[in-house]
Amino acid sequence: MRIDLNADLGEGYGAFTMGDDNALLDIVTSANVACGFHGGDPAIMVATTRAAKARGVAVGAHPGFADLRGFGRRVIRATPGEIEADIAYQIGALQACAALAGHRVTHVKAHGALANLSNAEDDVARAIARAVRGVDRGLLVVVMPGLAAERAAEAAGLGIVREIYADRAYAEDGQLAPRSQVGAVITDATQVAARTRSMVEEGALITPSGRRIPVAIDTVCVHGDDPHAVAIARSVRSGLEEAGWTLAPFTA
Amino acid sequence: MRIDLNADLGEGYGAFTMGDDNALLDIVTSANVACGFHGGDPAIMVATTRAAKARGVAVGAHPGFADLRGFGRRVIRATPGEIEADIAYQIGALQACAALAGHRVTHVKAHGALANLSNAEDDVARAIARAVRGVDRGLLVVVMPGLAAERAAEAAGLGIVREIYADRAYAEDGQLAPRSQVGAVITDATQVAARTRSMVEEGALITPSGRRIPVAIDTVCVHGDDPHAVAIARSVRSGLEEAGWTLAPFTA
Amino acid sequence: MRIDLNADLGEGYGAFTMGDDNALLDIVTSANVACGFHGGDPAIMVATTRAAKARGVAVGAHPGFADLRGFGRRVIRATPGEIEADIAYQIGALQACAALAGHRVTHVKAHGALANLSNAEDDVARAIARAVRGVDRGLLVVVMPGLAAERAAEAAGLGIVREIYADRAYAEDGQLAPRSQVGAVITDATQVAARTRSMVEEGALITPSGRRIPVAIDTVCVHGDDPHAVAIARSVRSGLEEAGWTLAPFTA
Amino acid sequence: MRIDLNADLGEGYGAFTMGDDNALLDIVTSANVACGFHGGDPAIMVATTRAAKARGVAVGAHPGFADLRGFGRRVIRATPGEIEADIAYQIGALQACAALAGHRVTHVKAHGALANLSNAEDDVARAIARAVRGVDRGLLVVVMPGLAAERAAEAAGLGIVREIYADRAYAEDGQLAPRSQVGAVITDATQVAARTRSMVEEGALITPSGRRIPVAIDTVCVHGDDPHAVAIARSVRSGLEEAGWTLAPFTA
Repeated sequence: MRIDLNADLGEGYGAFTMGDDNALLDIVTSANVACGFHGGDPAIMVATTRAAKARGVAVGAHPGFADLRGFGRRVIRATPGEIEADIAYQIGALQACAALAGHRVTHVKAHGALANLSNAEDDVARAIARAVRGVDRGLLVVVMPGLAAERAAEAAGLGIVREIYADRAYAEDGQLAPRSQVGAVITDATQVAARTRSMVEEGALITPSGRRIPVAIDTVCVHGDDPHAVAIARSVRSGLEEAGWTLAPFTA
Repeated sequence: MRIDLNADLGEGYGAFTMGDDNALLDIVTSANVACGFHGGDPAIMVATTRAAKARGVAVGAHPGFADLRGFGRRVIRATPGEIEADIAYQIGALQACAALAGHRVTHVKAHGALANLSNAEDDVARAIARAVRGVDRGLLVVVMPGLAAERAAEAAGLGIVREIYADRAYAEDGQLAPRSQVGAVITDATQVAARTRSMVEEGALITPSGRRIPVAIDTVCVHGDDPHAVAIARSVRSGLEEAGWTLAPFTA
Repeated sequence: MRIDLNADLGEGYGAFTMGDDNALLDIVTSANVACGFHGGDPAIMVATTRAAKARGVAVGAHPGFADLRGFGRRVIRATPGEIEADIAYQIGALQACAALAGHRVTHVKAHGALANLSNAEDDVARAIARAVRGVDRGLLVVVMPGLAAERAAEAAGLGIVREIYADRAYAEDGQLAPRSQVGAVITDATQVAARTRSMVEEGALITPSGRRIPVAIDTVCVHGDDPHAVAIARSVRSGLEEAGWTLAPFTA
Repeated sequence: MRIDLNADLGEGYGAFTMGDDNALLDIVTSANVACGFHGGDPAIMVATTRAAKARGVAVGAHPGFADLRGFGRRVIRATPGEIEADIAYQIGALQACAALAGHRVTHVKAHGALANLSNAEDDVARAIARAVRGVDRGLLVVVMPGLAAERAAEAAGLGIVREIYADRAYAEDGQLAPRSQVGAVITDATQVAARTRSMVEEGALITPSGRRIPVAIDTVCVHGDDPHAVAIARSVRSGLEEAGWTLAPFTA
C-alpha cells in the first residue's frame, strides 16, 4: 500500500521560470530534475536538489535532447553512441550538483522526445540503459510499462520503476494517446485524481473504453509545467491517501 | 626525478576540431579534458577519456565559463554560488563520461578566464575549491604556485599539483606575462624545451631577467591549440627525458 | 503634448515566457523587441512584431549580449568590432522578422549590461552607433540623456530618442541608482505614475532629494518582466493621459 | 559561356575554424555565408562578407537548423511557421553584417539537413520561399534542379539559380547519391574537374551509368570543409576556364 508520486522539476533556465517547483516539492515524493539540456542550469540543479533534500523528496536525473528552444520535445537524431554520452553527461552533472546540495541521485527518467524515442526504438533504449549502467549500476530507471525502454533496462540488469501518467489518456493498446488527440490531456483535477486512484487500486491502465491493462505501478507521474499542475498534484495525492495509500519515494 | 606533462585536450565541438589530440596524447602524461562549456561535447569527452585510458594518460576536468564562442577566454561575472554549481556540473559530467570509457577523473584544472580569475580573486578560488571538495575530496587541483587558487585549495584541504607553463614567459613577480606583451608566448620548440628543463631542474620559475623564483613543480603544461603544439610538446618531453626525468602522471 | 511609452517585449524563449506581452502591447506605443541573444527567438520575434503592428505599436531592436542564461545582464567583454557585428546581426534579424509580419523596425535600444556599458564606455557606445548607421541611417537610437550612448549617436548623426525610466530612482547626478540600492526600483503603481507625470511635465529628472535635472524627454520606459508590470504601465499611461498628454510612438 | 562557382564559407565559430575560407574566396565567384545557426558568428559574417567584397565575390545567406553541435546536418522538426521565421532571421542577420562590410546579399541557399528537407518536403520548401520573399523579393534562390525547393521558389515568383555539385555522385534519378554510399563523394581533383566540365558543357547531370539528365546549370558547388577542398576547387575552375567558360557570379 505504498506508492510514489513524481514530477519533472527544475526546468527553468536562468531568469526563465517553468512551473511552481516549490509548491510541487511539497506534494511529490520523487523529483525528476532537468540537467541543463532541455531546461535547468547548474545553479537551478543545486537549488532544486537542495530543496528536495530538505523535504525528503528523492531526486532523479531527467536527461533530454540538447534543445532548450524546443524544450526537449523535438527529436534530434544522433548515433546511439552520442545519445549514450549525452545521457551519461547529464546524469553525472546532476550527481555532482546533488552532491553540493548534500543529496544523492537515485533514479533516471528520460524527458520528452528522448523518452518517446526510447519507448519506440530499441537502439535508443539500449543506449540509455548503457549510459545508466556505465555511470552507476545502482540507479533505478523510470519507464512506461511494456515498451522498449523497459526491455532495455531489464536486459541491462537495472532496477526498474514502472510509472503511469495521472493526466494523460491511454490508447487501447496501452500507449499514451498522442497530445494532438482530443482528450489526450486531462485537465480536470477531480477526474485526474479519480482515474489515478482507480488505476493504482486495480493495478491496471484504464483506457477510454474502460478496458483494463494490468501493469505493475510503482509511481504516478504528475506534470509540473501546466497552469493547473499544483492543484492536480494535490488532488491526486489526496485521492491516493484517502484510499489508504502511503506516499513515499520508490527508493524508500 | 619524476615529472608530469599536461595539456588541455578534447576542446573540439561537434564537427569543429581544436588541436591534434591524438598526437598530444602520445606525449603527455595528464590530460585536462574540456567539459562542454568552452569546448568539448559529451561524445568528445567519452572519446578523449577512452583514448587517454588506452595510453595510460591521467584525466582531469578542465571546466570553464559557458562561452563556446569566446572559448572560455572572457570573464562572465557570476555569483560564487553559480560558479560553484557550474564547476561541480562540469566535473560530474566528465566523471560520468570517463566512467563510460572505463577511466577515472583524478584532477581538476580551471580553464582560461576562469583560471585567471581564480588566481586573482579569493571568492572565485574558494568557489572552485568548494565545488571540487563537494564532488570528490580525492580530486587533485592543478594550480599556478603562489596565487589565490592555491591558497583556496590548501584551505579546503585538497591535494594540490603545482604547474609551470613550458611556453609562457613569467613576469618578474612570478605571474604569467600577459599574452598581449611581446615575448609572452614562446614559440620556438628548442627554446621552450631548454627553459622548461632549466625550471624543472632548478625547481624555480625563471624570468626574462634571469631571476629564479623557487617553487614546487609537479607538472609542466604544454598548450594544445597552437599550430606548433605537437612539436613543442615532443621537444619538452625529450628535453626532460634527456635530463634524466621520468615522465609519469602526478597521480601515479 | 505628445509622449511615447516604451517597454521591452518578446523576451521569452521557446516554451519559456517572460512577462505579459499581450497586455503590455495594449498599453505602450513602442516595443523594444529582444533579438534572440538575451531572450527572444525568431518565431517570437515574428509574433511580437505582428502583434505590435496590429495595435499600431512601433517596434525597435533590443539587442543584448549573447547570454540567454544571464538574460543579458552580465557583461561579456568583446572587442568593439565584435560588438558592432553583434548589434548589426540582431538589428538585421529583427528587420527580417518584422518584414514577415508586415511591420518595420524604426528604432534601436540596447539591453541590460550592454546598455549600461554603452552609457559608461565611449568605445562601446561608438560601436553601437556604427552598427546602427551601417545597417540603416534612418533608425532612431533610444538613450538615457547625458551619457556616452547619446554622445556617440549624436556624433554618428543618428536620430536620438531620450528616455526616462518610470520605475527607477535617479541618483543625484542623473544616473540610475544601482538596483542593489534600497528604493532603486519603485514598485507602487500610483507613485510610479505620479513621478513619471511630474518628470514629463517638468521636462526634468527628479532625484530623491527633489533636485530637478532638466532633460529632453521623448519616451517613458516601463518594465515588462516585473510581476506588477502591467498595472504599473496602465497607471503611468492613465496619469499622462489625465494630464493632457497624447500617447503616440515617437516615430509618428 | 558564363558559369558561377559557389562554396559554403564563413562556417567557423569563435576560435573554431572550418575550411580555408581565404583560399576558396580566391577561386569561387559566389559565397554562401553561414548565418550563426549551424556555423558562423556575427564577427565572422562581417569578415567573410568583407573579404568577399574585396574580391568581387557575390554573397548569399546560407541558413541552417540551429544546431551548432550537429553542424546543421540533423533535422530538427519545427512547424513551417518556425522554419519561415528562422530563415528570415538568418537572412536579415547576414544582410546587416554585409551592410557593415559594404557588401550586399544577393542569394539564399539552404544548408545541410534543411536543404535536404526542402528538396523532399513541399511545406518546408514553401516556408523557405515565403521567408525569402517576405524579406526581399529580389533575392535569388539556389536550388538543385527538379525538386521541391525549386517548385516552391518558382511558385513564389522568386529568381532561381540551378546548381550542380562538382564532387557528389548523382543517382540514376538525378538526386544526390547518399553520402553513406560508396563513391558518393568524389575526392580526386582531376576526376571532379573532368565530370564538372562535362556536365556544364552538356547541360546535364551525368550518373555513374553514363546517363545524361538535361538540366539548366547556373552554378557549380564546390565544398569548403573538405581537406582537399582548395585543390578541388582550383581544379574545377581551371577545367572550366580551359573549356572556354568565363567564371562570374550569377548575379553579374
